[in-house]
Amino acid sequence: MKLVRFLSKGQEGWAVHDAATDCWHGTTSDSEVYPGAVDALIRTGGNALTNAAAMMASQAAVDLADIQFLAPVAQPPKIICVGLNYKDHSEESGFKQPDYPTLFSRFNTSVVAHDAALIHTDLSDTLDYEGELVVVIGKGGINISREDALSHVLGYSVFNDGSIREYQFKSPQWMMGKNFDGTGAFGPWLVTADELPPGARGLLLETRLNGQTVQSANTDDMVFDVESLIMILSEVFTLEAGDLIVAGTPSGIGHAREPKLYMRPGDVCEVEIERIGLLRNKVQSRVPANPTVHH
Amino acid sequence: MKLVRFLSKGQEGWAVHDAATDCWHGTTSDSEVYPGAVDALIRTGGNALTNAAAMMASQAAVDLADIQFLAPVAQPPKIICVGLNYKDHSEESGFKQPDYPTLFSRFNTSVVAHDAALIHTDLSDTLDYEGELVVVIGKGGINISREDALSHVLGYSVFNDGSIREYQFKSPQWMMGKNFDGTGAFGPWLVTADELPPGARGLLLETRLNGQTVQSANTDDMVFDVESLIMILSEVFTLEAGDLIVAGTPSGIGHAREPKLYMRPGDVCEVEIERIGLLRNKVQSRVPANPTVHH
Repeated sequence: MKLVRFLSKGQEGWAVHDAATDCWHGTTSDSEVYPGAVDALIRTGGNALTNAAAMMASQAAVDLADIQFLAPVAQPPKIICVGLNYKDHSEESGFKQPDYPTLFSRFNTSVVAHDAALIHTDLSDTLDYEGELVVVIGKGGINISREDALSHVLGYSVFNDGSIREYQFKSPQWMMGKNFDGTGAFGPWLVTADELPPGARGLLLETRLNGQTVQSANTDDMVFDVESLIMILSEVFTLEAGDLIVAGTPSGIGHAREPKLYMRPGDVCEVEIERIGLLRNKVQSRVPANPTVHH
Repeated sequence: MKLVRFLSKGQEGWAVHDAATDCWHGTTSDSEVYPGAVDALIRTGGNALTNAAAMMASQAAVDLADIQFLAPVAQPPKIICVGLNYKDHSEESGFKQPDYPTLFSRFNTSVVAHDAALIHTDLSDTLDYEGELVVVIGKGGINISREDALSHVLGYSVFNDGSIREYQFKSPQWMMGKNFDGTGAFGPWLVTADELPPGARGLLLETRLNGQTVQSANTDDMVFDVESLIMILSEVFTLEAGDLIVAGTPSGIGHAREPKLYMRPGDVCEVEIERIGLLRNKVQSRVPANPTVHH
């Protein structure tokens, strides 16, 4: 099942994909039959989202050309990001491949949806792309075993973990460079786990900047796979329904190139993961207007 | 104005302090006159919280001995923590004092209230205390100037930024050591900014472990003061009403001592900031039961 969240005529809504017809069906929140927001249904758990999606499948067709995409989860309780999770990226970044994951987090204020602008700050000209797989937690828990890990996954999506490198390395902690408003793109939609190989293994991940392929990898190459990440994270804290694990980027980042390849206003960056989707964002200057963030 | 959030007979409520009588007055959410949750009133902004507090002042007395404390903000959109913000602490930690703040974040799953158990994980015996000032944002914004910074502050509270040192240093990123469930104590209440010196300057901060003073400092010694932190943070991301800035700890941490002084089950840790309050937590083992988190 594929779910897309959107704004249409100022109303929030969501739709579900019909693979047979390649059409989307759903409603906005002003409809009498609207089953509630995706976030709330995820938090409710059980079959709430599946049942709501089955009902949405019989609603009117939604043309994706007419809507404004929203991030697949509006308010994730946590956005956990994994650094150095592909050997060749660790190498290009000058890090020894660690045997414990390197983790940091994003605030939701940094997140934009598919088709929204990625924001190039006026403070630094070092905006870099990072194509990544996103794991969306469906069922919370603590001390989750490797064997149980995938039963906690609702689905997968695509992320561009846009990084202001200058700020990422201003201190030993990467947080600031990973949290500029409008630098983390998330979407275009959520694909539930049942549609993909276990742990989203074996999927091609490609990042393209202005049509040129700049990252190309396979999710098989993740050092810590989805099961390991869930196990290791939940040793430390409670995972909650709606949490995101942004699972790390492969080699090819612009900061590791000579000359450096940073994103500039007007550039178009695409991250595509096989069988999940294509996330496309145009880069825009933050000046003069601030981004309008719709979650 | 001092505000305390609490649970009483299973109901969430909050109360306001009457300085003249040293009594607390308020209601729980099942009362007909309950003005809404503190978080919602903070998000509403303007005078919503002040007006609600004025109404609460005429409600029944609340005996703090009969209630279970809750964290002053239930669901902060962000919990931003400042590392290395006191020169003597940077020195004892082996870091050169940086000229840009060292920032990381906590997830809300790590937070417990005053009087709740601080959780000693069975995975490591390196639980350390860190007494800190908390700034609670009342009015959001981006690109906030130093001059305007304090107008964005709702008030202040106290934090014990409990850290599992072994996990903090397992990778270059401190996140895991700062995010074990039940390791960040926050409370006992919120003191609005009008009751304190601008920027909460000049206040004594003391941490005591089992009655022994282990940290003693003055908020004047913060390298980045409250105004600077708000300015620097809001250059990068939008601050939102309810965000917390946990402003850094002074010297005296257990990890920098020889022999090391870590917290163990049964220990009692207190952090007190002059004119704000005293945050007290007893350390308990995570085994066998998981913490029950009430925000």
